[in-house]
Amino acid sequence: MEPRVGESEANRERVRTAVLAAPEADLLVLPELANSGYHFESQGQSAQLAEPVDGPFVALLRELARARNLTLVSGLAERDGSTLYNSAVLVRPDGSIELYRKLHLFLNEKDHFAPGNLGLPVFQVGAARIGLLICFDWQFPEAWRTLALRGADIVCHPSNLVLPGLAQRAIPVHALLNRLYVVTANRIGTESGLTFTGRSILVGPRGELLAEAPETSEETRVVEIDPFLARDKSVTPRNDLLDDRRPEHYDCGRES
Amino acid sequence: MEPRVGESEANRERVRTAVLAAPEADLLVLPELANSGYHFESQGQSAQLAEPVDGPFVALLRELARARNLTLVSGLAERDGSTLYNSAVLVRPDGSIELYRKLHLFLNEKDHFAPGNLGLPVFQVGAARIGLLICFDWQFPEAWRTLALRGADIVCHPSNLVLPGLAQRAIPVHALLNRLYVVTANRIGTESGLTFTGRSILVGPRGELLAEAPETSEETRVVEIDPFLARDKSVTPRNDLLDDRRPEHYDCGRES
Repeated sequence: MEPRVGESEANRERVRTAVLAAPEADLLVLPELANSGYHFESQGQSAQLAEPVDGPFVALLRELARARNLTLVSGLAERDGSTLYNSAVLVRPDGSIELYRKLHLFLNEKDHFAPGNLGLPVFQVGAARIGLLICFDWQFPEAWRTLALRGADIVCHPSNLVLPGLAQRAIPVHALLNRLYVVTANRIGTESGLTFTGRSILVGPRGELLAEAPETSEETRVVEIDPFLARDKSVTPRNDLLDDRRPEHYDCGRES
Repeated sequence: MEPRVGESEANRERVRTAVLAAPEADLLVLPELANSGYHFESQGQSAQLAEPVDGPFVALLRELARARNLTLVSGLAERDGSTLYNSAVLVRPDGSIELYRKLHLFLNEKDHFAPGNLGLPVFQVGAARIGLLICFDWQFPEAWRTLALRGADIVCHPSNLVLPGLAQRAIPVHALLNRLYVVTANRIGTESGLTFTGRSILVGPRGELLAEAPETSEETRVVEIDPFLARDKSVTPRNDLLDDRRPEHYDCGRES
């Protein structure tokens, strides 16, 4: 998709049109900051565009999830009191919602958003378990591993990627190393000279590319998957990606 | 290289010939289990082929490191008392040695070797800092991250890889995510129906492929690098691969 900065109402209409036109699906993922656009002119602008989870954007997602009987994941500029977060919301068909707040902020996002304070939760959705990451979070192997250790089958990854091709190269490897499905929903378009790299990808737990969207135009792709394939972590009859870990020798946890 | 199982003396001659014929270099990396070969017929055979670090294989490495004034890294089947390890030894030109023992054993290696008990050390070699991993260790992002956090500039990775292409795809991403140089020295050849995948690779800290060896023939490649480039962990003027971590939210450490 192409959200546009400052066009809250038009962005909601884009989401409405895309979700209503999408093929039948159980889960649809929208890009990061789909309500607000990305490149804010000022802190005043981001504060004005951010909205609480009981605001009009999430209300629309709930309406659409109910209408289409599917789960929606979307990035949003979230306001919680006077604090802004770069968040992702998961909305089930019954209207229940879950929240993730981006842990690793990119560049000038640090001027607008507080770092996420909700950890790396995994949510039950029907029989599947879904973890959420947002854009630059992709750079941190610990985030993927944590979601795998917490039982995620699918990682939904709303994005506004700008570094050409790096994430699209690394994400299939994260999928492979953790045996996860990944849905990276990246935006397209240009804002104030910043060009987003499109190429949303759907990746399977062997690192295989299941679908890829264009670089410069909007597209909705739906792929049939078996989320339970992500629960088989065996590499050989005697090797398991998670059980074979030697955590007593790793430095990547809380103690660093 | 192509070490052969059971041919200890011939394997030493292969190493001697290769190292003496190599172009001038500061660091050369040899494959996993270069003294013994890989596919043991029995525990008796592995016990017979393994040797202590003061045995003839490491003595040869010390002789060659001194003669060529370079640092050698090689895999070896190591015997320590009655315990065998799948180890890598680092030998400096002054004859001093360092040891790493493979943390993540692959498939039937578990019948022959004890899991490594020396952690993930990083060794000073001249002005550079070198970490060691062996073969299947590549699957574990925590191992790469731990070496990066401990200041490694270069990861030397003696291997006997058998899963076609997976490691060669993932290792450049490990390099990219951690800003490390990687030298994966993989063996070639077939032992008892097990085919090793060759394609040794040298990778730079932006994930770039600096050199690649053939799939089925021996080759020595030397590449000029600046190890200090691995110390720049900045992604943007406001993002650093290590400083931006949120370890309080990760599960991949000792507490798991």
